[in-house]
Amino acid sequence: MVRVHLDPLLPLSGGSLGRLFCWRCPRPCALPRGPLCPMAEIDETSIDITLPDGSTHTHPAGTTGLEIAESIGAGLARDALAIKVNGEVRDLDRPVTEDAEIEILTWDDEEGKQTFWHSSAHLMAEALQALYPDVKFTIGPPIDQGFYYDVDLGDQTLSADELEAIEEKMLELARRDAAYERHEVSKADAIEHYEAEGNEYKLELIEGLEEGEISFYEQGEFTDLCRGPHIPSTGDIKAPKLLSVAGAYWRGDESNPQLTRIYGISFPKQKLLEDFLERRRKAKERDHRKLGTELNLFTFDTEQVGPGLPMWLPKGTTLRQTLQEVLQQEQVKQGYKPVCTPHIGRLDLYRTSGHYPHYEDDQFPPMVTGEGDDGEEDGYLLKPMNCPHHVKIYQNDHHSYRDLPVRLAEFGTVYRQEQTGELGGLTRVRGFTQDDAHIFCTPAQVKDEFKSVIDLTLKVLDALGFEEFEAQISLRDPDDTEKYTGRDALWTRAEQDIREAVAETDLDAYEEPGEAAFYGPKLDFMVEDALGRAWQLGTIQVDYNLPERFELTYVDEHDERKRPVMIHRAPFGSLERFIGVLIEHCGGNFPTWLAPTQVQIIPVGDDFVDYAQEVAATLRAEDVRVEIDTSDETVGYKIREAETQKVPYMLVVGGDEEEAGTVSVRSHADGPQGTVSVQDFLDRTGPEFEPTLD
Amino acid sequence: MVRVHLDPLLPLSGGSLGRLFCWRCPRPCALPRGPLCPMAEIDETSIDITLPDGSTHTHPAGTTGLEIAESIGAGLARDALAIKVNGEVRDLDRPVTEDAEIEILTWDDEEGKQTFWHSSAHLMAEALQALYPDVKFTIGPPIDQGFYYDVDLGDQTLSADELEAIEEKMLELARRDAAYERHEVSKADAIEHYEAEGNEYKLELIEGLEEGEISFYEQGEFTDLCRGPHIPSTGDIKAPKLLSVAGAYWRGDESNPQLTRIYGISFPKQKLLEDFLERRRKAKERDHRKLGTELNLFTFDTEQVGPGLPMWLPKGTTLRQTLQEVLQQEQVKQGYKPVCTPHIGRLDLYRTSGHYPHYEDDQFPPMVTGEGDDGEEDGYLLKPMNCPHHVKIYQNDHHSYRDLPVRLAEFGTVYRQEQTGELGGLTRVRGFTQDDAHIFCTPAQVKDEFKSVIDLTLKVLDALGFEEFEAQISLRDPDDTEKYTGRDALWTRAEQDIREAVAETDLDAYEEPGEAAFYGPKLDFMVEDALGRAWQLGTIQVDYNLPERFELTYVDEHDERKRPVMIHRAPFGSLERFIGVLIEHCGGNFPTWLAPTQVQIIPVGDDFVDYAQEVAATLRAEDVRVEIDTSDETVGYKIREAETQKVPYMLVVGGDEEEAGTVSVRSHADGPQGTVSVQDFLDRTGPEFEPTLD
Repeated sequence: MVRVHLDPLLPLSGGSLGRLFCWRCPRPCALPRGPLCPMAEIDETSIDITLPDGSTHTHPAGTTGLEIAESIGAGLARDALAIKVNGEVRDLDRPVTEDAEIEILTWDDEEGKQTFWHSSAHLMAEALQALYPDVKFTIGPPIDQGFYYDVDLGDQTLSADELEAIEEKMLELARRDAAYERHEVSKADAIEHYEAEGNEYKLELIEGLEEGEISFYEQGEFTDLCRGPHIPSTGDIKAPKLLSVAGAYWRGDESNPQLTRIYGISFPKQKLLEDFLERRRKAKERDHRKLGTELNLFTFDTEQVGPGLPMWLPKGTTLRQTLQEVLQQEQVKQGYKPVCTPHIGRLDLYRTSGHYPHYEDDQFPPMVTGEGDDGEEDGYLLKPMNCPHHVKIYQNDHHSYRDLPVRLAEFGTVYRQEQTGELGGLTRVRGFTQDDAHIFCTPAQVKDEFKSVIDLTLKVLDALGFEEFEAQISLRDPDDTEKYTGRDALWTRAEQDIREAVAETDLDAYEEPGEAAFYGPKLDFMVEDALGRAWQLGTIQVDYNLPERFELTYVDEHDERKRPVMIHRAPFGSLERFIGVLIEHCGGNFPTWLAPTQVQIIPVGDDFVDYAQEVAATLRAEDVRVEIDTSDETVGYKIREAETQKVPYMLVVGGDEEEAGTVSVRSHADGPQGTVSVQDFLDRTGPEFEPTLD
Repeated sequence: MVRVHLDPLLPLSGGSLGRLFCWRCPRPCALPRGPLCPMAEIDETSIDITLPDGSTHTHPAGTTGLEIAESIGAGLARDALAIKVNGEVRDLDRPVTEDAEIEILTWDDEEGKQTFWHSSAHLMAEALQALYPDVKFTIGPPIDQGFYYDVDLGDQTLSADELEAIEEKMLELARRDAAYERHEVSKADAIEHYEAEGNEYKLELIEGLEEGEISFYEQGEFTDLCRGPHIPSTGDIKAPKLLSVAGAYWRGDESNPQLTRIYGISFPKQKLLEDFLERRRKAKERDHRKLGTELNLFTFDTEQVGPGLPMWLPKGTTLRQTLQEVLQQEQVKQGYKPVCTPHIGRLDLYRTSGHYPHYEDDQFPPMVTGEGDDGEEDGYLLKPMNCPHHVKIYQNDHHSYRDLPVRLAEFGTVYRQEQTGELGGLTRVRGFTQDDAHIFCTPAQVKDEFKSVIDLTLKVLDALGFEEFEAQISLRDPDDTEKYTGRDALWTRAEQDIREAVAETDLDAYEEPGEAAFYGPKLDFMVEDALGRAWQLGTIQVDYNLPERFELTYVDEHDERKRPVMIHRAPFGSLERFIGVLIEHCGGNFPTWLAPTQVQIIPVGDDFVDYAQEVAATLRAEDVRVEIDTSDETVGYKIREAETQKVPYMLVVGGDEEEAGTVSVRSHADGPQGTVSVQDFLDRTGPEFEPTLD
């Protein structure tokens, strides 16, 4: 429907900015837009525009995104930030010249936000240029939350005060409401421009680009090498906020010059910024790395122990052990058998399982002891997973269908060499303890086992107050079944089993075809941390691969050898990540049964330490974790300390209490609770101390 | 006092056996002994012989050991097997030619036994030579319990029947009562002899000997290259027993030909053999490797997991965990704080601690990741001990004298590359879990900490029925104090502290100067296994070294930085070795609180499985570990099974029991106990189920 007839255009000569391509035109040209413009002819044709609701509308070819938005509604046009044309995000004022499925992007769309933040980076650059004339710009992309720009400020460093001044300048420039204008330029012109500016970084970037791929964006006094797209105008940026300054290397390479990276964020409304800052403040308070230190749960020693290898302090160890105990208790009830296996295995074990050398890069290097009889490298691998050891335990005995399912459980610590850059607190570590179990069962038992494990996982999430989570069923890619191991019929059946197990346990789960592991379909549970990042915690995975590789068998009712199915499962996922997310979820206010210190006894003076000891002994006899604050501080200070440590109950004891055999109870959650006898306190609060998933 | 004047002797010519040296003479000679022998003159002198009781007796020079024994008493002469002359064990019939401290060795002396078994090896060789004329002998030494001979039988293998025939032949030869005769031979003669025999092994042995060092021993028809000594005659060997046949490589090198190793033992009386076999049978029954398999406690997979790396099966895991829990419970009461640290640390950690590369050979090879900034190898070590990690946890905080002692406890699994040949079941492994704790305290606190740990260790040994053990205080070598680290005054004080702690806890301990570690004095607890081998279990060690190397500090009452003392301690030692020795000690009959299955319920038929489940639920609610035998077997069979599994209590339930709400109790230790209600059973037996060290 589009009739494109364009005469050969005038050749472009020279390379100054004044001779840039017209930004509305796909071809090089030096004419002003208007009747002389050969593109004008496009207006004579018409195109079909399909909206996200499926409706199709006819527009003249060359209609801009903004015009389309206006045709839909004035509100949408006002909020419009960019347009998505056949999957590609573009500036709102570029003409649409062909039939297209389009979407008008606003702040509510992730891609709308990204465009907004990208344009904000340019606005910050304009402000920097005004305040630091010698600044050299390198790259300035939008990120997950905001944007940054890496700049070369020579020997200068930026202080927090200066960030505010830059912010001010950004606001001042934004109020000028300058349009973001796109110009396509030739490589030669682009090079000439940056040679004149003396910016070696941009020149290096241009070197890597092909002729025809190069565009500049201009707003106000600022021009930048950029492929775009951008929002219509700086005036949309109502609330910019610069967040921090960090060092960065040009192209991430430590041998390159160091640059200054300025992080910022921006919003179309002041209220949105305020909400963001409040959320951020709260998230910071809940950051498990911060709380982990404040509550004395864990520590790292990157230099000598190694990055990503948490050391659990006494309180964190108590937390871990309590989680382990409560889960093991439940698992034993459900017929799981605990096992305990070494943290290493011979390379041959992992050659058989297929984990070595295949996944070598994700593992710690092997401990090479020499050469085996077969001339292959001999030695040990620090175990990256527990399954091969559990397989060896399964193989230690003969199995009949009557013994199945065999459920072997181990809180097994495994080690994987995650990239240093990806490590973060407890949520991504190099050594972690999986609440692992492997279920060896017949294909007919898969569904029931899945149901039990779903129930167990839901019990765990519920007991720890995770009300919001997502459950994803990962299935085979139906268009590419070749890349999966295991027979077709088994997959079909297991996928159906999982669907039915999910339905029968009333779990709200969504399906993701193509997301299955090569060895089998799975069900994952995802929970968000304080910053809204989703982490995979619990997982249940069918495995057809290891039983095959290790040639596992059981004897069926007809006395025939059969291959069992293996199910990997971990309701927590790993203790480390689970505890990391849990800390952020409850802000360090663990359920009483899980709190490392459950009761802090606060004698009002040295004279009452004996009575405090007596009360402590009574509580400890009931397995309550009690501490006594015998410091010289005031009662007020001691209470504040206990509150900071988020101890669920504080029992203040003085003369009156000693005389009456009582304690003055203060709850971390609910404040003062009055004075009661020790027995009354136990009767009333006792059940809270009981570790249980029920 | 000995006047030795010996004329030059006739030169020895030729090399046949007929021209061997006279065995009573220290010089080469070819004359028969008698008036012509130049040695006869020795008889004219006299020598002083000092007996073990310190008494000195004058004898003619050249008096034999047997003659001395006869001079002491006819009984001793009858029992005499060899003589120790100035520390050297010799044949009884060799003349003593100089003043000497002597000891007549009998079966009651370890060296007497060794000589007896060495001679028995020759007797077995004589029997083999008679039965297998083509046999080639290599080496045949006495060992800890008996002897062996490695022989080349060509392509032949030996069966158990053949061992009996060899034994018969040994007895037949022994009845001939042939004397063991020593001949010194020249290297040339020895070579000629074995070249004639075509025995390349003995020729290789001779190659390694100097002229003058070579002797042959001859008894009956058999001659062997041997340095001796031997017992007087084969007639003393009344009760030989061949125990087993194994493969062995010549000189232990796998690239050499494989030999047949025949193990045997022998005694001077039939009764002693019978006692030995009975002890051996009992020990075999108690062998923790055998019981570990029968009771489904643990397994090894040398091929794929690795030698010395036990995998704990469900029942063994329950045992381990129960031991851990009961000790942790006690430790928490005593102010220990649990911690949890990774199984690896950076090489730098172990460079600082001094464990790497110093003890490299005892550790698994490092996981090398590259080079550090300092050009040194960078990477990780699988932790061979927990101390450096605990030191890092101590360093995570500032410490005042008021906080000390800090007691950090961890059931920490460590890995050491013990030599494959030294591995044996659980008592010597490559991966083991120490019930480790490190106490950081002031020098003034050492004594009290030692006392507490001694009490705890005694509690552990007592709770597990170890009534017999040895406690050794290992002190500095007072003559070589230079080789120890730590100031002199500290050592003197700590050694005194340990002595006093031992005295004040009424511990019966002996002192071993020179046995201290270089880093501090220690106290070790030793317990014997079923075969009477003593194993070190619990240990308490002072350490002045690590606090120095890691520059640990605390602030004392004068606000000055001081070095804390570190105490390593482990009441079990390691769970692996402790459990290994415990299994042998109690023959798998664990205390009820520790038994993996505490109660086996045995329904007399399918109809009573429901009632069995009901009883099980009641018991499980009280944390009793219950299993139900629902197999199709007879009650008798089920009881035998439970007895074999050494389950402390069997509850048989049928119609009568169901109707009356009772159980028919059978105790593994004491047999049938009558029929009682479930509640009565719990009331009566309940305390036995309670895991406790008290």
